Amino acid sequence: MKILITGFEPFGDYKVNPSAIVAERVAKDVLAEDINIDTFYAILPVSFKRARELLEKLFNEYKPDIHIALGLRPGASFIAVERVAINIMDSRIPDNDGYQPIDEPIDPQGPPAYFSTLPIKAIVRKLRESGIPATISNSAGTYLCNYIMYLSLHNSARFGIPKRAGFIHIPLPPEDAVNRRDLSIGIPPSMSIDLAVKAIKIAVKTAVEYFNKPDERVPP
Amino acid sequence: MKILITGFEPFGDYKVNPSAIVAERVAKDVLAEDINIDTFYAILPVSFKRARELLEKLFNEYKPDIHIALGLRPGASFIAVERVAINIMDSRIPDNDGYQPIDEPIDPQGPPAYFSTLPIKAIVRKLRESGIPATISNSAGTYLCNYIMYLSLHNSARFGIPKRAGFIHIPLPPEDAVNRRDLSIGIPPSMSIDLAVKAIKIAVKTAVEYFNKPDERVPP
Amino acid sequence: MKILITGFEPFGDYKVNPSAIVAERVAKDVLAEDINIDTFYAILPVSFKRARELLEKLFNEYKPDIHIALGLRPGASFIAVERVAINIMDSRIPDNDGYQPIDEPIDPQGPPAYFSTLPIKAIVRKLRESGIPATISNSAGTYLCNYIMYLSLHNSARFGIPKRAGFIHIPLPPEDAVNRRDLSIGIPPSMSIDLAVKAIKIAVKTAVEYFNKPDERVPP
Amino acid sequence: MKILITGFEPFGDYKVNPSAIVAERVAKDVLAEDINIDTFYAILPVSFKRARELLEKLFNEYKPDIHIALGLRPGASFIAVERVAINIMDSRIPDNDGYQPIDEPIDPQGPPAYFSTLPIKAIVRKLRESGIPATISNSAGTYLCNYIMYLSLHNSARFGIPKRAGFIHIPLPPEDAVNRRDLSIGIPPSMSIDLAVKAIKIAVKTAVEYFNKPDERVPP
Repeated sequence: MKILITGFEPFGDYKVNPSAIVAERVAKDVLAEDINIDTFYAILPVSFKRARELLEKLFNEYKPDIHIALGLRPGASFIAVERVAINIMDSRIPDNDGYQPIDEPIDPQGPPAYFSTLPIKAIVRKLRESGIPATISNSAGTYLCNYIMYLSLHNSARFGIPKRAGFIHIPLPPEDAVNRRDLSIGIPPSMSIDLAVKAIKIAVKTAVEYFNKPDERVPP
Repeated sequence: MKILITGFEPFGDYKVNPSAIVAERVAKDVLAEDINIDTFYAILPVSFKRARELLEKLFNEYKPDIHIALGLRPGASFIAVERVAINIMDSRIPDNDGYQPIDEPIDPQGPPAYFSTLPIKAIVRKLRESGIPATISNSAGTYLCNYIMYLSLHNSARFGIPKRAGFIHIPLPPEDAVNRRDLSIGIPPSMSIDLAVKAIKIAVKTAVEYFNKPDERVPP
Repeated sequence: MKILITGFEPFGDYKVNPSAIVAERVAKDVLAEDINIDTFYAILPVSFKRARELLEKLFNEYKPDIHIALGLRPGASFIAVERVAINIMDSRIPDNDGYQPIDEPIDPQGPPAYFSTLPIKAIVRKLRESGIPATISNSAGTYLCNYIMYLSLHNSARFGIPKRAGFIHIPLPPEDAVNRRDLSIGIPPSMSIDLAVKAIKIAVKTAVEYFNKPDERVPP
Repeated sequence: MKILITGFEPFGDYKVNPSAIVAERVAKDVLAEDINIDTFYAILPVSFKRARELLEKLFNEYKPDIHIALGLRPGASFIAVERVAINIMDSRIPDNDGYQPIDEPIDPQGPPAYFSTLPIKAIVRKLRESGIPATISNSAGTYLCNYIMYLSLHNSARFGIPKRAGFIHIPLPPEDAVNRRDLSIGIPPSMSIDLAVKAIKIAVKTAVEYFNKPDERVPP
């Protein structure tokens, strides 16, 4: 089973993107731990144009069975397993190439949305049973995260690569949160990289376990 | 121009649903203030079955040009103008009839999502210019609010009634928030009914103003 | 009964200070409504030096029986009735004169703290019964708000003017919150000026009612 | 140098109290790592009566130079280094013996407050430089945490044991936060036990380093 794990490079005023660190560590750890899982990771540029190009290249060359895309969700206190990607780009800030699409479709011919084909309910259940704050999220936003999730599911629907795809958001790491300040809550929530790595390893293994069976049907 | 404004009856441990109060007050105020707008309001049951029946009856009998659906979003500090409804029902708690759909489509033949046809960017801009906390929201959840938004846009897409539809979430009123307690923030945020009424009146008038012109293209 | 209500002028990036608006409106409303209460309000400069001078002048000339000091607490979703003022100045930002005391006592000869002599429990109970989010707060910070509370109680303890004193924090108004963004919660919580005015009027009347009797002994 | 580190046993609906786990781990780690520091830990009962008795016994028998008391602050996303303890007990819930003091002084003859004699500014600076979310807190509440901090500083002021004392609050651990839900923020913030242990070890070492020199004078 071939699994692609992607993270993103830094953007905005986030000097480090924990999704890149976690993608690399999880890919390497799982590769070393499980002989049946062949992992591969990539750090996507925060560029609508270049991220799409790299993603298509990865799909064509590597032909992953599963794609788990990771991204940063500042302000979250939990792992957010995304349920759905929507066919829109609507950016609060320009991407790292200076491109800022406003209310444009990702693919004018594409469907309005795709639901994740990862076992999102099983992943959340296993994370919570492991003591890791996690929840289903119903929006991956309208920036690069939602875009990559949509593109991956769009490629899957049209070409069968990957066979399963989805997106998981991780919180700020403590070393970044420490320098920020929310009016309501003081320093915003964070999650240590170690715990995020543990979480995404569980997600990867759960995606493999449920590859050929339906997701659990439990309340969100 | 005929405008239907809907709210919901109480559910869960929310003894009063501000969306019902606001729907009624806005409908009556706008009717009294603007001779060109014919408003009508209804309080929908928190029942997947009965809400659908009432909504279809309202569409058939009243044939609204615009449907603005309102609902409660506990914990929000702002008016949330919803961007998209998704084709799923996934309930954390049963509805008021004891029905709790888990990961079921609203319509197995329907598209995966509908985007609001209200001028959501113009509404948020006008609310903020009026000093009212407001934002685009990318998820109406997976319970009754998302369901009604989906059904309204689904009816619009298939039968042309209503011509424009969308959903707006309002915060807890202060008199409800006062009895709740968040670990992180103490008493959760709230918005006075008076301010929510002012906000939804602006939304109604903006929906009328933009009925025949495209929404603004500004960042979210 | 003579009541002094104080607010503060703007500071930092808060262009308007709701405490000043609320102080003025409450003072005028109560004066008009209740023949037995003689209210007076003043807007204190956000200057350690000038605020103390004005406060002493107000005490000497007006000789208030009660001093209710108001201030802004950005990020709060509720009225915060302060319990205690501590003998320290420790400023995150300079005051409006550019003075920024760090870990200095307000009065090296003064006691380490004073407890409010307002009926804080009765005020919170009445606010909550009126549907207004309110709570006892155990810290007025270490900037101007705590300083004024300490000075007022210090003057009261030494010279008997005022006879009762305390501090109440109010949230950001919606028109200010709308332009801010917390990572964790989006737009931070707010409270409309109208509701804050209603709250402080209740506080004033409760302070008068309990002037000669002890505060209620109920859990915080 | 003898250092007493205390935590608390569980209370309310918190089945595990991370302060107890962290106190034990820090005491053992520091003892093993640093030959010049003699650490000792104790888990205090959540009982006003029995906690005082145990604390006095520990002071008399062990005669610590420094007492660092730890407690749980649910909802916090950061280490909170407390600045001040106030002479009051005001309990929202009964202690584990069923005792619930309301607005009673800890010691009717004691001063209204004590300031921490730990180097709170240096501790916060070092924590933040180590990437650990941390802040000065101006209130340890009015329950057991504030009580123990007051008692320790009161004993220090009267009898010279301990010579330095203070209180540090730690967040919920992830495995507890996962089962809770805030309206405003979803799952409340948390900090892994590993990171909290690292933080308190830094606090202990900083307390030793500054034992004979004044705290830093930097903004809070």
